Amino acid sequence: MERRAFLKATAAAGAVTAAAYSAPAISNNRREWRMATAWPSGLPGLGTGAESLARRITDMSDGRITVRVYAAGQLVPGLETFDAVQSNTAQIGHDTPGFHLGKHRAFAYFFGAPFGMSFAEHSAWLRYGGGQDLWDKLSAEFGLKSFAIGNIGTPPFGWFKKPLNSVDDLKGVTMRMPGLGAQMIRRLGAVPTLMAPGDVYQALQSGTLDATDFTGPANDMALGFHRVAKYYYWAGVHKPGAVQQAIINKEEYDSLPKDLRRIVDVACQAANEDMLAEYTWINAQAAKALRDEHDIIFDRLPEDMVVALGRAAGEILEEEHESLDSLGKEIWESYFRARRDLKALTEFGDQAFYDARGADFSYPNP
Amino acid sequence: MERRAFLKATAAAGAVTAAAYSAPAISNNRREWRMATAWPSGLPGLGTGAESLARRITDMSDGRITVRVYAAGQLVPGLETFDAVQSNTAQIGHDTPGFHLGKHRAFAYFFGAPFGMSFAEHSAWLRYGGGQDLWDKLSAEFGLKSFAIGNIGTPPFGWFKKPLNSVDDLKGVTMRMPGLGAQMIRRLGAVPTLMAPGDVYQALQSGTLDATDFTGPANDMALGFHRVAKYYYWAGVHKPGAVQQAIINKEEYDSLPKDLRRIVDVACQAANEDMLAEYTWINAQAAKALRDEHDIIFDRLPEDMVVALGRAAGEILEEEHESLDSLGKEIWESYFRARRDLKALTEFGDQAFYDARGADFSYPNP
Repeated sequence: MERRAFLKATAAAGAVTAAAYSAPAISNNRREWRMATAWPSGLPGLGTGAESLARRITDMSDGRITVRVYAAGQLVPGLETFDAVQSNTAQIGHDTPGFHLGKHRAFAYFFGAPFGMSFAEHSAWLRYGGGQDLWDKLSAEFGLKSFAIGNIGTPPFGWFKKPLNSVDDLKGVTMRMPGLGAQMIRRLGAVPTLMAPGDVYQALQSGTLDATDFTGPANDMALGFHRVAKYYYWAGVHKPGAVQQAIINKEEYDSLPKDLRRIVDVACQAANEDMLAEYTWINAQAAKALRDEHDIIFDRLPEDMVVALGRAAGEILEEEHESLDSLGKEIWESYFRARRDLKALTEFGDQAFYDARGADFSYPNP
Repeated sequence: MERRAFLKATAAAGAVTAAAYSAPAISNNRREWRMATAWPSGLPGLGTGAESLARRITDMSDGRITVRVYAAGQLVPGLETFDAVQSNTAQIGHDTPGFHLGKHRAFAYFFGAPFGMSFAEHSAWLRYGGGQDLWDKLSAEFGLKSFAIGNIGTPPFGWFKKPLNSVDDLKGVTMRMPGLGAQMIRRLGAVPTLMAPGDVYQALQSGTLDATDFTGPANDMALGFHRVAKYYYWAGVHKPGAVQQAIINKEEYDSLPKDLRRIVDVACQAANEDMLAEYTWINAQAAKALRDEHDIIFDRLPEDMVVALGRAAGEILEEEHESLDSLGKEIWESYFRARRDLKALTEFGDQAFYDARGADFSYPNP
């Protein structure tokens, strides 16, 4: 989507007070669910992911649950999905655990820690390593049931107006950056700030911002970042395999008959595969355009900066442990044990494979 | 599962003639589907994946489609699922496109080419890059509808009785290896052979085999390979991100009402995420046991061997193109274009992230 159309859609969404909405309609065994999302309408990946999840639930249940999607600001503001689902103003929310560290610090580990787990590793932990049980326990404390419904893959670290040659080049840089990543770059002398995606272009242009992260080539290009910054640094060690979530009002979820509960569960798991596929594809196409048509410079972060970021992340994550309650500590320990064991496999699996693909041989290139 | 129990389950499956089964029962709008699988009953990852796919379809449809799983040999032999589903002896089959190159060489690209695409890349191509449409076209020629329902991730290259120090050490080695991978290692002087998993242990022990591939630490350990070989080489460049499939009798699939069709589609997509998660988890746990308790030596393939394998793969894949019909050529071109574009993104995304995780810093290690 072009930046202009994209921002227009965001603005057009407007704001409607939540109070105007009554409890969900249930008649003839049919329910209507409102889905509050954190995204502008039609945003590729996140917005389209919300719409396709809603459609899957509606279609599979033959309308016994009909899900209607509300863009950010249409039902509640984009950062208030959590409260909307708690109060049953919306029965389902579509956002990311990364927005809710203010509710509980341990939500961080269902989003993904800096230098944490990849998509496949995180899903392995959730489904087979006890992660989902812990997420259920934490969510239940807030009257919610949570599901992973998508992943942006490993995003870029971010856009910079000036090149990064060493860790010192991060000093004094004002950068949009969320969550634990913000704490990490602050330790290296940067000045992190959180800003809604729609405001970033203007801030980069005016010089209020020197740099920004977001989701990846496709969304970033739609927002126009490539027109005000030329350097695109990788990898997004601040939020690798960043998990997106559906949160469902737990009382509503528990009241479903068994087949509808399974339809919701399986729709969410399918969505988790689908969003990664969509981002992987659209990001590859956008990356090609950014390089070939817009002369954007793709580069990896300087090596000394990677080491410094890793050290800062390690310190911050150890400090986080101290501040957690007992369930939080259990989550923290489970996450980092899983990450250690899974990383040891990935080094021989995916990582060795990617290295092998980089060897010197000729291969079909149609 | 222990090797003994695992092999016993396989043998116990026995063989029942397909003719004993009539057409699928449909009454009161309820259908019974027979699922023919290529796997021994209960095999972790592949066998459990078949069972959980069957359960998801049955549960979500509240029994309107009740799927009953048959292990290899119970309904038809493990390599005859394709014919069983074509003839509607089974309505659904659970195996891998890698078994069916004899039906059409282009099925290779829905399994994954040597040095081809990772899980995330392959899913991106299938769902957003036109891959599924091409698979549908090819499958329809055989009266089938095909779905990706799982992935073993990037497996090992294989078990070896002697260490590999250079490409010359592959000369004369007798190795179990399927499909295009077999052609690839033959060019390097190895002697590839195909053998059912249950026979490999004995063949390694007696010296009939010097080496074998299979799926990864968890299944390989259950089959006892670690007791007769000590060297475990990575990465599985012969079948990275190896795709498993459900094949459904197309007439049967097309006759479903819309909600049931969606239930089948979405169950398959969820299964595609689930099997990767299961393999990632159980392989990481088994890898730890193999190293810590069984002193197995994990190593990457020697660099000169990687280059030689890549060159052989490139040659073979170019030759394959010549032998394909026009739909086959279209599939080949779509696959390798997608692989090229996606690889360019992955180098900055996942690969840069894995490299960053290997830097020198301390990190939570509970």
